[in-house]
Amino acid sequence: MARRASCLLGGVLVLTAACAGAADPLPSWNEGKAKQAVVGFVAQVTSEGSPGFVAPSERVAVFDNDGVLRCEQPLPVQTAFTFDRVRALAPQHPEWNDKEPFASVLKGDVNGALAAGRDGLLDLVMATQTGMTTDELDRLVKEWIATARHPVTRRPYTEMVYQPMLELVAYLRANGFRTFIVSGGGAEFLRAWTGEAYGIPPEWVIGSREKTQLEMRDGKPALVILPVVDFSDDGGGKPVGIHNRIGRPPIAAFGNSDGDLEMLEWTCAASGPRFCAFVHHTDAAREWAYDRDSRVGRLDKGLDEARAKGWTLVDMKEDWRVIYPPPDRSRADPRAIR
Amino acid sequence: MARRASCLLGGVLVLTAACAGAADPLPSWNEGKAKQAVVGFVAQVTSEGSPGFVAPSERVAVFDNDGVLRCEQPLPVQTAFTFDRVRALAPQHPEWNDKEPFASVLKGDVNGALAAGRDGLLDLVMATQTGMTTDELDRLVKEWIATARHPVTRRPYTEMVYQPMLELVAYLRANGFRTFIVSGGGAEFLRAWTGEAYGIPPEWVIGSREKTQLEMRDGKPALVILPVVDFSDDGGGKPVGIHNRIGRPPIAAFGNSDGDLEMLEWTCAASGPRFCAFVHHTDAAREWAYDRDSRVGRLDKGLDEARAKGWTLVDMKEDWRVIYPPPDRSRADPRAIR
Repeated sequence: MARRASCLLGGVLVLTAACAGAADPLPSWNEGKAKQAVVGFVAQVTSEGSPGFVAPSERVAVFDNDGVLRCEQPLPVQTAFTFDRVRALAPQHPEWNDKEPFASVLKGDVNGALAAGRDGLLDLVMATQTGMTTDELDRLVKEWIATARHPVTRRPYTEMVYQPMLELVAYLRANGFRTFIVSGGGAEFLRAWTGEAYGIPPEWVIGSREKTQLEMRDGKPALVILPVVDFSDDGGGKPVGIHNRIGRPPIAAFGNSDGDLEMLEWTCAASGPRFCAFVHHTDAAREWAYDRDSRVGRLDKGLDEARAKGWTLVDMKEDWRVIYPPPDRSRADPRAIR
Repeated sequence: MARRASCLLGGVLVLTAACAGAADPLPSWNEGKAKQAVVGFVAQVTSEGSPGFVAPSERVAVFDNDGVLRCEQPLPVQTAFTFDRVRALAPQHPEWNDKEPFASVLKGDVNGALAAGRDGLLDLVMATQTGMTTDELDRLVKEWIATARHPVTRRPYTEMVYQPMLELVAYLRANGFRTFIVSGGGAEFLRAWTGEAYGIPPEWVIGSREKTQLEMRDGKPALVILPVVDFSDDGGGKPVGIHNRIGRPPIAAFGNSDGDLEMLEWTCAASGPRFCAFVHHTDAAREWAYDRDSRVGRLDKGLDEARAKGWTLVDMKEDWRVIYPPPDRSRADPRAIR
């Protein structure tokens, strides 16, 4: 990824021949309808003088995170972090042994812990990721992500990203797009590692957040995270979050679950050239296969609507030549790579 | 401004010789301490290999809007718009004749209208700029700004911007900075015209906002503005707004009033090279002279703190060779230019 992103200087995109590249910009994509659709869209919006041309200033693409840019099975990465924080803090909270969903986490009962749904998860986040400054949380996340491993592949979470999507992000950026993450997860949590994993700077991360408040800490102003939800960037919240940040609909949106449906509807209802796509998890051998009945990343209404509206469905099994980037053998345990 | 911004393609900054320029990048600034300070800071953070070097990805500068980028006297531009909206909608609201601050606006009593302070102004904004979609408000603002004139100079509001600050924004961008507006005013209102006036894209505008909600309008999803404050981007809110959007403190901050003080404190308390400046309105002949006792843009605590901490004070009278850009004679009334 470091090599791939070498044409990007922070948030500043320098268009060079090396960057725009004559070679296939999407080598991990099989030739097929999905690749054709995205390449055709980019050709259309970048063809100056054509009716489908879109000025570079309007080229904004948004990506959901979990299940679109990275693996969200068996648990989204923030959930794994949250469970680990509960375990780390448990000695100071004996009351958690009798309180759900804390008790299930401490017993190692993932299904029990998830049974309380989004509200239960929110209780865990509030108990473990608030009451500290934004800098303190950033440090905790960075320390965790440097050592934590995916429970199945044993690879670092920063490597459990989809190589075809990294290529797509780089391809769009080489074509003048700004590429935002729009995640239901916490923005603080994401920003601590999306720079390294995707080359996406903090100002391009839109996520859920708690209220923060300016306070003096050690004689300096600091932002303290309060245990109060300020914004939930999911479902109908995604267009709200995008508008608050970007001021207009993007021209391209990539999701994978019903939580992304409003984002895609809003994007593709706007006038002018638009591109909407769902990543469809169809590859039980190399990743996971799930849609309508999944607990994580359920894609049900969205699947019907994508077909009805002619949005692109990226079939992971058919469309992707590889799933993950080559392992960094200095960090990952090669025995566990599948 | 169009010519000045010709090296900027939307949010994409292409570094060219013309942009980085060998000529004085700040021709409207007199030689003096303020110009020296800002040029010295930029030289420091862009000198690769020097201890003060800052990577381009971390070069973020924030600017308050009213009184920093543009004239805020005798009234901030959004207040003028709001008063005009009250007048336009008055026929449908006979009850406003007996209700403050509406009644004062309708009688043309500006002091009476402002007597209710920020809360009174908020009542006017809620009554005139909510209950519609974001697209509808955008259209209203664009129509208004195309025809409205500053009450003293009779120039369009988009021309009541400070030429030295436009040069400063362009200079920072040519040096790899992203330049955000961080205003106590409404983000929707600002975005409708900051592109034209400053060349700053909507995604670089941080402001106050009302709650918005996704609803179906004419069979399409649209964002409807509710009469509920979602975020007040003033005082201690400015660091919160910046963090939510950018994920870290900027390295340079420009304000002009005590409402910007926390933004500057937070910026300059962070480690590494930082630059904080207040624009001090000292020019009663060419603009307005005001600080500690002003109703609009009061600078009192900030003036003391700037001196105590060695922040830069830009003395408009001494430091600026010109105030406004040359008039666009095709639009402005030349008789009114002073």
